[in-house]
Amino acid sequence: MILEHVSPLGGAAVDVHVAEGRIAALTPSTREGTPRLLLPGLVEGHCHLDKTLWGRPWWRNEVGPSLMDRINNEKATRRAIGMDAAREGRALCEAHLAAGTTRLRSHVDVDEESRLTHVEKLLALREEMASRIEIQLVAFPQSGILRTPGVEEWLDAALRLGCDAVGGLDPSLIDRDPVRHLDIVFKLAERHGKPVDIHLHEAGELGAFSMELIAERARALGMQGRVVISHGFALGDVTGARADALLAQLAEAGVALCTSVPPSRAVPPLKRARELGVTLFAGNDNIRDTWSPHNAPDMLARAAMVALKYELRRDEDVALALDAVTVLGAQACGFADYGLAVGARADLVMVEAESLAEAVVMRRAPKLVVSAGRVVARDGILAGG
Amino acid sequence: MILEHVSPLGGAAVDVHVAEGRIAALTPSTREGTPRLLLPGLVEGHCHLDKTLWGRPWWRNEVGPSLMDRINNEKATRRAIGMDAAREGRALCEAHLAAGTTRLRSHVDVDEESRLTHVEKLLALREEMASRIEIQLVAFPQSGILRTPGVEEWLDAALRLGCDAVGGLDPSLIDRDPVRHLDIVFKLAERHGKPVDIHLHEAGELGAFSMELIAERARALGMQGRVVISHGFALGDVTGARADALLAQLAEAGVALCTSVPPSRAVPPLKRARELGVTLFAGNDNIRDTWSPHNAPDMLARAAMVALKYELRRDEDVALALDAVTVLGAQACGFADYGLAVGARADLVMVEAESLAEAVVMRRAPKLVVSAGRVVARDGILAGG
Repeated sequence: MILEHVSPLGGAAVDVHVAEGRIAALTPSTREGTPRLLLPGLVEGHCHLDKTLWGRPWWRNEVGPSLMDRINNEKATRRAIGMDAAREGRALCEAHLAAGTTRLRSHVDVDEESRLTHVEKLLALREEMASRIEIQLVAFPQSGILRTPGVEEWLDAALRLGCDAVGGLDPSLIDRDPVRHLDIVFKLAERHGKPVDIHLHEAGELGAFSMELIAERARALGMQGRVVISHGFALGDVTGARADALLAQLAEAGVALCTSVPPSRAVPPLKRARELGVTLFAGNDNIRDTWSPHNAPDMLARAAMVALKYELRRDEDVALALDAVTVLGAQACGFADYGLAVGARADLVMVEAESLAEAVVMRRAPKLVVSAGRVVARDGILAGG
Repeated sequence: MILEHVSPLGGAAVDVHVAEGRIAALTPSTREGTPRLLLPGLVEGHCHLDKTLWGRPWWRNEVGPSLMDRINNEKATRRAIGMDAAREGRALCEAHLAAGTTRLRSHVDVDEESRLTHVEKLLALREEMASRIEIQLVAFPQSGILRTPGVEEWLDAALRLGCDAVGGLDPSLIDRDPVRHLDIVFKLAERHGKPVDIHLHEAGELGAFSMELIAERARALGMQGRVVISHGFALGDVTGARADALLAQLAEAGVALCTSVPPSRAVPPLKRARELGVTLFAGNDNIRDTWSPHNAPDMLARAAMVALKYELRRDEDVALALDAVTVLGAQACGFADYGLAVGARADLVMVEAESLAEAVVMRRAPKLVVSAGRVVARDGILAGG
């Protein structure tokens, strides 16, 4: 396969030669006229394939406002309407693919209800979809670890079964014991040689303290580059020198940040994180689920939200938002062979736009999506779908 | 014209009888099956038809970060690329119409460069489009009043020529004299019997003070229900009892708030405003212009942003976001004969959704848009366009 006369990330026009699923060569284009803009496959840094209602009829949300309301409602709804992590997860992956996402990190609930059932379903889905989309699964203790007997063992089993990373959740607010919670998470990571990705909604100084504990463990265990803090709202709450010190600590420990850029609350600073050497990437988090009806499997839309959240208006600034759903997500999650260079996996997204900023702002369905060298979608429609 | 078997705002199925541009009758539907959801024409509460680059090729934004950078850049760019307020404004109105907007309030720059040229172009556009979209024009001193000789007289002339309201802008930060600035705005309003809509970006206690000055003048002049504060970010900055007291003062003075719900900063509270009797509605503000490449002429998308900004997740809460781009916008701007009742102007938007919340979250292009009794768009495409 040859993609002729394309402009990789807005650069000079080339022909992209693909062989055996990889980029075999990039040769200068000899054709005249404006080349098509080419992006690397987009990266969904944080979603929940086993929570989404994607592909189902509209579900009426009447959930109470507390975190526990939402956790308990989800369990009850899963039973009541017969949700299926594989079926809804597949529907979401395919919608993501059609919109240009070729790598995706999903958390998967491990709690006293789901135990290993979601893990098993999503591991099978990961295999089934492997030729089209690369899925990473994070074993996620949605209902805490300490407060529910058995979760630690199920997390251990989930990693043995093949989950790609171990998760954690608000170690003070959920399990009421940050040190023991984090020690279990990092012990499991060490035992299985797997990275860590911790949901941290904790606000202000409480969340900042949790970040310090996480950074200390990442450094002590030599896990630089293999630890992600998702959300990290505390870094939107603290300011000035305190925020800088925290970011410097994360940079030194090689801890990355993933944000879903919610319009409703403060998030870690993007430009300052870059300046201080912290990787900040983006994910959707909830997409049409019992927690929230909002968001969509569309990483250009997520990049647009990144741009709005951080007031990125200049073209060169809007391009930073695109980094958060491409190279930075791949780097932080450890997706291998990523990018538009020779030798990389041929994950190619051809879009109708004059510039990277226009691609983000207009977010038209990609003309063509290639994953591992195969055409998987055209004009927003799955190939063979 | 009869629209058969539709569900007005999710209510019982009816047939809508249209005659002479108005809703003549609503009769119970006799058909079986699920009716189509019917919304009233959507209301764009705040945009700038003379700023947009809509319909033009991508414009590369390299503007500096300060307010004055943006104001000066806009003037230079208008000249450099030959912007035309009528042409781009028409393109934006038509895109809005295709997405179901039938009433629209636009501010129009009155400064030392534009003088009355934008006003004249947009007054002509208002006439030209009157049968399809109702446009209100607010004469807007983008570069202040006191700091530029002539602006007060041009504002006066703009109102005489037919502008629908008089605007103002950050009376302390731009003109450095809040009382004199606001006294001129309200004097012009009184002289011409026109309402007021003031851009107020001023933060914290400075903005709160400006709000007090505005409320005092609205009350003193008996202008309850005819004054809007756009943005009002100060009400996102102050909290608790101070915010409540301000809202109570606005409620008593009949001053409404318009928000563009920017993800990047705090905005006036929605539910608390409702509780205390303040009308809070929504608009896009900048749409693809030299200030910002973001936003779109799509009020369902704006409602979705309202829902995200205020963390509206339950179906009944998401419906509040729809109020902000329908009935509340019409009420605050004074668009007459609005709604889905007998006698109202037949502005009808038929959407594919099972519920109001789904309409907001999915924001599919409307199946049908009727304005003043005439079909103006189908499936997102202008009729006869």
